[in-house]
Amino acid sequence: MALLQISFFSKSLKRETTINALLPLDGPRPDDAPPIKAVYLLHGYTSSYTEWLTHSRIRELSNRYQIAVFMPSGENHFYLDDVEREALYGEFVGKELVEFTRRMFPISHRREDTLIGGLSMGGYGALRNGLYYGDTFGGIIALSSALLPYHVGDIKPGTHNGIAGYSYYRAVFGDLDNVLGSDKDPEELIRQLKAKDAPVPDIYMACGTEDFLLEVNRRLGQFLKDEAVHHTYRESPGNHSWDFWNEKIADALEWFKQAADSKPNEPQG
Amino acid sequence: MALLQISFFSKSLKRETTINALLPLDGPRPDDAPPIKAVYLLHGYTSSYTEWLTHSRIRELSNRYQIAVFMPSGENHFYLDDVEREALYGEFVGKELVEFTRRMFPISHRREDTLIGGLSMGGYGALRNGLYYGDTFGGIIALSSALLPYHVGDIKPGTHNGIAGYSYYRAVFGDLDNVLGSDKDPEELIRQLKAKDAPVPDIYMACGTEDFLLEVNRRLGQFLKDEAVHHTYRESPGNHSWDFWNEKIADALEWFKQAADSKPNEPQG
Amino acid sequence: MALLQISFFSKSLKRETTINALLPLDGPRPDDAPPIKAVYLLHGYTSSYTEWLTHSRIRELSNRYQIAVFMPSGENHFYLDDVEREALYGEFVGKELVEFTRRMFPISHRREDTLIGGLSMGGYGALRNGLYYGDTFGGIIALSSALLPYHVGDIKPGTHNGIAGYSYYRAVFGDLDNVLGSDKDPEELIRQLKAKDAPVPDIYMACGTEDFLLEVNRRLGQFLKDEAVHHTYRESPGNHSWDFWNEKIADALEWFKQAADSKPNEPQG
Amino acid sequence: MALLQISFFSKSLKRETTINALLPLDGPRPDDAPPIKAVYLLHGYTSSYTEWLTHSRIRELSNRYQIAVFMPSGENHFYLDDVEREALYGEFVGKELVEFTRRMFPISHRREDTLIGGLSMGGYGALRNGLYYGDTFGGIIALSSALLPYHVGDIKPGTHNGIAGYSYYRAVFGDLDNVLGSDKDPEELIRQLKAKDAPVPDIYMACGTEDFLLEVNRRLGQFLKDEAVHHTYRESPGNHSWDFWNEKIADALEWFKQAADSKPNEPQG
Repeated sequence: MALLQISFFSKSLKRETTINALLPLDGPRPDDAPPIKAVYLLHGYTSSYTEWLTHSRIRELSNRYQIAVFMPSGENHFYLDDVEREALYGEFVGKELVEFTRRMFPISHRREDTLIGGLSMGGYGALRNGLYYGDTFGGIIALSSALLPYHVGDIKPGTHNGIAGYSYYRAVFGDLDNVLGSDKDPEELIRQLKAKDAPVPDIYMACGTEDFLLEVNRRLGQFLKDEAVHHTYRESPGNHSWDFWNEKIADALEWFKQAADSKPNEPQG
Repeated sequence: MALLQISFFSKSLKRETTINALLPLDGPRPDDAPPIKAVYLLHGYTSSYTEWLTHSRIRELSNRYQIAVFMPSGENHFYLDDVEREALYGEFVGKELVEFTRRMFPISHRREDTLIGGLSMGGYGALRNGLYYGDTFGGIIALSSALLPYHVGDIKPGTHNGIAGYSYYRAVFGDLDNVLGSDKDPEELIRQLKAKDAPVPDIYMACGTEDFLLEVNRRLGQFLKDEAVHHTYRESPGNHSWDFWNEKIADALEWFKQAADSKPNEPQG
Repeated sequence: MALLQISFFSKSLKRETTINALLPLDGPRPDDAPPIKAVYLLHGYTSSYTEWLTHSRIRELSNRYQIAVFMPSGENHFYLDDVEREALYGEFVGKELVEFTRRMFPISHRREDTLIGGLSMGGYGALRNGLYYGDTFGGIIALSSALLPYHVGDIKPGTHNGIAGYSYYRAVFGDLDNVLGSDKDPEELIRQLKAKDAPVPDIYMACGTEDFLLEVNRRLGQFLKDEAVHHTYRESPGNHSWDFWNEKIADALEWFKQAADSKPNEPQG
Repeated sequence: MALLQISFFSKSLKRETTINALLPLDGPRPDDAPPIKAVYLLHGYTSSYTEWLTHSRIRELSNRYQIAVFMPSGENHFYLDDVEREALYGEFVGKELVEFTRRMFPISHRREDTLIGGLSMGGYGALRNGLYYGDTFGGIIALSSALLPYHVGDIKPGTHNGIAGYSYYRAVFGDLDNVLGSDKDPEELIRQLKAKDAPVPDIYMACGTEDFLLEVNRRLGQFLKDEAVHHTYRESPGNHSWDFWNEKIADALEWFKQAADSKPNEPQG
């Protein structure tokens, strides 16, 4: 299992950025081996590209599921484009990083072999960008997602909610009164995909029953059910912590594997 | 010469960030060895914490001058506080990073053993933060500095100067009509230090005669001369490139060494 | 929790080597905070300095127990001195690395704050070097230890035991008929410490009941009991895998913490 | 210019090892771009995989010549197979590393696009393995090469030549009286290639006139001339230092580029 740290110039961010990666490529592969799947894993608020690698056991999972793992940095920007500062985090993780890693490594280019996932802020980032770039990603893993669009409308100028202040949310999400219904709102993105008959990625959601984000996760879970999106929603005892995320990232990769195994063979492009 | 990559939580940035470092500590040091000096080196626009280490021969210089080198990331923010986004790059490189590295490593805490330097955007960052935190830094190395305060007043809404657009400069520098005269203007910072009789760091400036930033560097050089700041200003053939910076970073460290050697011994605190 | 990768010149190995490290130093520490403890963690056969960081959740444990963690590379040499090739792995992990990290970082210099641990080959390395440098280490964590001294006498010229051949074991352990009773034999090292009335480090041993190394671990566990060494020996269902080691490394750090907490306060040097 | 650190399992070394790499792949490449060339760069005695990246300006050269650079660790073994310890350094850099990087990255598989180079111990390693695996490498860059086969016959049991002792050389090179004429002797390897009418890689050699290794480099240079091997041999003022190697690695890549440009187009396989 090759472990990589990669620093490279991102056009979307207009600067060099660093990611960690795992590639199941240090043994020979038979010529008829299936193409290597890929998952793009997003970290949480206050953390960076080192988080998944050093807090989870993702290296073993990468080996078990023969899936490449790419772990970028989102720098507290919720994986959204900051047009003002010319740092397009959404475009970076949803488009450029996929193109770059496909150019660099022999991974599958197929939608159904390409997942995006994350925890907390990264769970939101995975939902938002997995849906916004729904033609690229066949699946989304959203753990304890910080689904702020449900809340940011309540944040008023001059206030601070203990995590950050109004101006921060304003800068990251734009007009806070209009995040719901915008392309930063997972529900709206699903409605848009369905309206144009585009495929919606399969979604694995999970949240601990002691997590302070439980309510918003339940709310989106219900929406997925109402809209008949192919998904699973898991709840179990746990809070906003790595005990929960370690359990669920393994469960999520297993869920996607079984889904893939149960599909009829498709011709590969 | 120990080479380090360090990822740690920055309170100023509210998240984990990564730096490279060099520490001349892998041989035993005599008990009466002088304390290890330190220089904080800032990269240019579009680059990151890897730039100095992989484009210059700073590892040899760190050994030659027995100086620790710390190389953070500035992420296109010109090493200025982004209050809106709660990412205080100025406070990070000028204050927190110094405190963190002094807590982590056995380096000198003395102002005269502490330098800040950089190239292009980082040259500006070194001047601004070296002066703003003038009680911390005894010297500044400013190579081909992107002294944007002289220019940003000319950037108008809706325009793009080939490097970035108005909204970017506005977000990074604040009110563009009032950068000159603010605490983002090196001239103003020097005036303020002199007004309160605080020591001004020694300054090494250099710019290539083919550099597109020559004019603004000359302008600040002239100001330093007019204000009788202890400094040197070097010009030689060269453009905005690593041939020039490799030459000048070595020259700068030599200049500071000779200045230190020529000073009478001071009692050490 | 600061995460570091450090490359530095080792005199014992006569070359640059790389380690990973964790230091609980990215928050301010009160002046009366206790000194930071340290554990040196050794990887298993076929692996390297990245193993502990990317397969376990040691980063969380480092934070929970406020203990610095240093993870070197042993390069299939069982952490023994290879005098012939002038690569002294035992001296490196048992002496030089401790001295280097104490020179570089503000960690405790006290024996009772200094642990050495490892898994499989690294479990053996921790036992051997923890005992050989028993004046440096107050405790040893030995997980699923590859206690080859019990076996290498059976390996005959020209044979290969599925893992490596005779010449390899001969090169690493020396005269295979005389490893037992030498300073590569944990039992002998304990006898020597007791003979000179030197303190024996506290020992935490663990092995899974499905592990192919169970028998040799039981044998040493019995010896520790017979010799009344202060230790614990844990067995539970599990094989030679990270599920077991993740569980036991947490358990081991907790065991050492409780042992430390239950000791009367000592004057600190 | 993407910068990578890669840790992966090497079958030749029977363990995980770490390399640095540079890949000119962070911009889009036109479909008809020529395949990316590759150079494998070997460090000197006492150093490691970080040496080339942090002492030279190879990152700029990688960009200028659009050549991928792979920098492994040789751990004082002169890039020779240590059969006894089951660590086959020659096979690793000459065969496995090439195959691994070709499997991992979209680099050219053509012999004429594949170089091996090094300095001092690495210069010897490049000559030995470039010739031993002469079907893989089209060119060799040998800077200030430590051509020990000319000397090791003089090292006697019980002696130490200031760098290492007899037993070390014996362990690394085997029977010291018979290194000349063996497959560790570049002259012999060239004779063997010619005997079987196999192509000999083009060779760039350089040595400083103040280098303590000047004589052995001249000796091999003369041999190349006598044998009409396609090569260049450069001498200029300089000693065993990075000033010299920085100058010559740039010169070497230019020499190979001009050689490639002057060849008639070949059909590409």
